Amino acid sequence: MLELWTSETPNGWKTTIMLEELDANYTLRPISLTNREQKEDWYLARNPNGRIPTLIDHEVDAANGGFAVFESGAILIYLAEKFGRFLPTDTMGRSRAIQWVMWQMSGLGPMMGQATVFNRYFEPRLPEVIDRYTRESRRLFEVMDTHLADNEFLAGDYSIADIACFPWVRGHDWACIDMEGLPHLQRWFETIGERPAVQRGLLLPEPPKADEMAEKTTRQGKNILA
Amino acid sequence: MLELWTSETPNGWKTTIMLEELDANYTLRPISLTNREQKEDWYLARNPNGRIPTLIDHEVDAANGGFAVFESGAILIYLAEKFGRFLPTDTMGRSRAIQWVMWQMSGLGPMMGQATVFNRYFEPRLPEVIDRYTRESRRLFEVMDTHLADNEFLAGDYSIADIACFPWVRGHDWACIDMEGLPHLQRWFETIGERPAVQRGLLLPEPPKADEMAEKTTRQGKNILA
Repeated sequence: MLELWTSETPNGWKTTIMLEELDANYTLRPISLTNREQKEDWYLARNPNGRIPTLIDHEVDAANGGFAVFESGAILIYLAEKFGRFLPTDTMGRSRAIQWVMWQMSGLGPMMGQATVFNRYFEPRLPEVIDRYTRESRRLFEVMDTHLADNEFLAGDYSIADIACFPWVRGHDWACIDMEGLPHLQRWFETIGERPAVQRGLLLPEPPKADEMAEKTTRQGKNILA
Repeated sequence: MLELWTSETPNGWKTTIMLEELDANYTLRPISLTNREQKEDWYLARNPNGRIPTLIDHEVDAANGGFAVFESGAILIYLAEKFGRFLPTDTMGRSRAIQWVMWQMSGLGPMMGQATVFNRYFEPRLPEVIDRYTRESRRLFEVMDTHLADNEFLAGDYSIADIACFPWVRGHDWACIDMEGLPHLQRWFETIGERPAVQRGLLLPEPPKADEMAEKTTRQGKNILA
């Protein structure tokens, strides 16, 4: 049995989408970031970094409570190899998918994360810093768009590369990153968004609540989820 | 034959150290970041992200000029699998090494990168932002220290996890991150720094020049390489 400790964030959705795509037998353990559950000792014992998500594979190392996997990118590779899906097995195809997962982990995720923080939360408001992360995130969108002009998906068939990037691209409004003028990225985004497993994964561990959605307004007062 | 396009940065050193550890037959192609060679069309054709390093494996896909691998973390996995070294083959050991590579790619690298930018280069000087990235980088050092209290290396034997993290930890002075009071991280850092292949890798593609070292002063005027 698989167990996923997670929350409603792009990194969390990567793993719920993957488990839904795999039609895996798993249980969800929602982690309250508000209550800082991810910093409690029982959590840190399985994930030394104190972040979500964490996968526990109870079919492995059962004597020690199951095998814990942290870092969403590592969870994607672990599940892809366990189930033999969404990661090519030939040398080039496999590496290409891992390259784009790494690109998401090191670039798209951290930079959009910073863009979100400085656009939405950070006080004081710092236009120079907002500009830095908004421009870098837009550059990364353009890298994807250029690549997707000649490729249906990021690395051959639909793979963990696409699953890694999709929830971050989906957060473009919340991070205040413009997706205009990027037709190939838009096409890819719409194609993946239509997948039933993706739609299911985005509702986990909890579907968005109406009152929370209403609260998700920009600092400028624009309701970006409307 | 392997070819590495790289520069003197932590992400570059990960790959030169790995190739030196493997005693691989490879040629170096130094990339001038100053001249923005990494943004030229011939480079972007092999690395769509326009960053260093890029590995070209001329033993694979030779008809198309060799197989290009971008993202330093993906290069480490690619080389580990090609040579069968520095990445365990059992399910748990393999995943543990990949987990720490991902942790470096998504956390240690990006956060120390931001700490460096805001401590060293960014104008205006923004104390709140410096504090954000300095504290997060220190937290990541503490995560390593706690883990290394019970583990000689990050993931079993010396592996790509250690190779990924070492050049970043080595940059702690330049990023203005305090390593005091972290004895296990310090022990790990010294152990790895003594490896001949690591010492060779850190001199590639170019050894540091005396005049450049003299110029590497803090914004406060302290010579941090002295």
